[in-house]
Amino acid sequence: RSSSRYLPRLVAMAQSQSYWASIESDIETYLKKAIPIRSPESVFEPMHHLTFAAPRTTAPALCVAACELVGGNRIQAMAAACAIHLMHAAAYTHEHLPLTDRPRPKPTIQHKFDPNIELLTGDGIIPFGLELLARSMDLAQSNPDKILRVIIEITRASGSQGIVEGQYRELGVDELSSDIKIIEYVSNKKEGELHACGAACGAILGGGAEEEIERLRNFGLYVGTVQGIVAKNKPGMEEKIEKLKGLALKELESFKGDKSELISRLVEPSLCAA
Amino acid sequence: RSSSRYLPRLVAMAQSQSYWASIESDIETYLKKAIPIRSPESVFEPMHHLTFAAPRTTAPALCVAACELVGGNRIQAMAAACAIHLMHAAAYTHEHLPLTDRPRPKPTIQHKFDPNIELLTGDGIIPFGLELLARSMDLAQSNPDKILRVIIEITRASGSQGIVEGQYRELGVDELSSDIKIIEYVSNKKEGELHACGAACGAILGGGAEEEIERLRNFGLYVGTVQGIVAKNKPGMEEKIEKLKGLALKELESFKGDKSELISRLVEPSLCAA
Repeated sequence: RSSSRYLPRLVAMAQSQSYWASIESDIETYLKKAIPIRSPESVFEPMHHLTFAAPRTTAPALCVAACELVGGNRIQAMAAACAIHLMHAAAYTHEHLPLTDRPRPKPTIQHKFDPNIELLTGDGIIPFGLELLARSMDLAQSNPDKILRVIIEITRASGSQGIVEGQYRELGVDELSSDIKIIEYVSNKKEGELHACGAACGAILGGGAEEEIERLRNFGLYVGTVQGIVAKNKPGMEEKIEKLKGLALKELESFKGDKSELISRLVEPSLCAA
Repeated sequence: RSSSRYLPRLVAMAQSQSYWASIESDIETYLKKAIPIRSPESVFEPMHHLTFAAPRTTAPALCVAACELVGGNRIQAMAAACAIHLMHAAAYTHEHLPLTDRPRPKPTIQHKFDPNIELLTGDGIIPFGLELLARSMDLAQSNPDKILRVIIEITRASGSQGIVEGQYRELGVDELSSDIKIIEYVSNKKEGELHACGAACGAILGGGAEEEIERLRNFGLYVGTVQGIVAKNKPGMEEKIEKLKGLALKELESFKGDKSELISRLVEPSLCAA
């Protein structure tokens, strides 16, 4: 009867996957509505394409889940979740531009558009995401102070305190010589800060207490850093990964209920690809 | 005594120049304080450099002047004025990146940094400018609704409804064949929308009435478009320029006092380089 021992765990995994899948589906619906292919098509077709061509991260979904965890409604976090995906999509697009001084070969991606178009589209996506957020007040039944606070969170995480700083650090680092410290630093600044931002924004918009916001921010930072490190697939980082997972789960201890259990699953990157 | 006939005009010009110069100087001071060269220097040194390397436009100064025209204090418009310059600086930086498919030679500019650094710095400047603005609430004694409204104005003007759309339109247009309609369209989207945004933001933050905001927005649109067209230096556009100047001045008619006279000087691009 060894199978019955695992049944509760399998049920929990299935529940977790369907929870994350429902959030992902809602985000996708919202994004598709927010970025229709409309006039001028020369602008909006690449914007639409590059928004959905960027690989998903779990930062937007964490934003929604954190909002629900602190008692908010999903819709309150939706614009922020989309803005977070858009910042990531813009960064991803620019990271793969064929510039003359790319320090090392990047994984080959399909370029549907010319470099100039991709450059401009990235430039258009950043303000578009923040505009979406700034306009979301009625929908989210939020107060403007909360939205401004979330704008500050997102601009920090996508700018020179987050993704851009991580990308700077990657420049000039040779792939082969990149050591554990650099991988951790870059993962912290890129995936880490984006997830920290997602979790904090969700908690802010859902009406969480300051302590809840900070715990969820820390959880996001650890979880995102783990994901960044795991994606690099370098041997010798197992201990660091386990330590970060432990720290992440510790931040969730004070939260009760099913949602806390669902969110905790994010520490296992393989489970997120629902 | 022909010289005495011109004296009042000369005095007015001198007053106007000193007014614009004082605004420019305040904006520069604010920007230098906002973007110090601090840690991480690899990020902030290029950000500082590229912020000040971009040629000035009069859109930020118009933001401050519009705020004062409707009765606001200069400090209320300062963060928005700086954010507008930062959006322009980011666009200028990316416009001069050496990409493989630049449609035609751009005016040669000195590149102090490698393309990757300039790409990333532009990406960092956009959220930085919006963060600066989102944080400006206390300083500006503004309410958050006004700041959110200004964020929407600036994201629109710098994104796919403004600068980015103008840049898209320029792509693939051959320099020699670019006709009057395209020059007008691009000038309207780039310099025009940025000045319209500057004027509208200043009027919003200064507490202007809706009608004042819209008149100043129109004034900015005409004035910016004139500047864009004049900068292209194409023959055959004189009539269009005079028409736009007339439309611009008409929008100011309902404003009274010295400040209105000072602002009206912006229709003469040569006078702006104070």
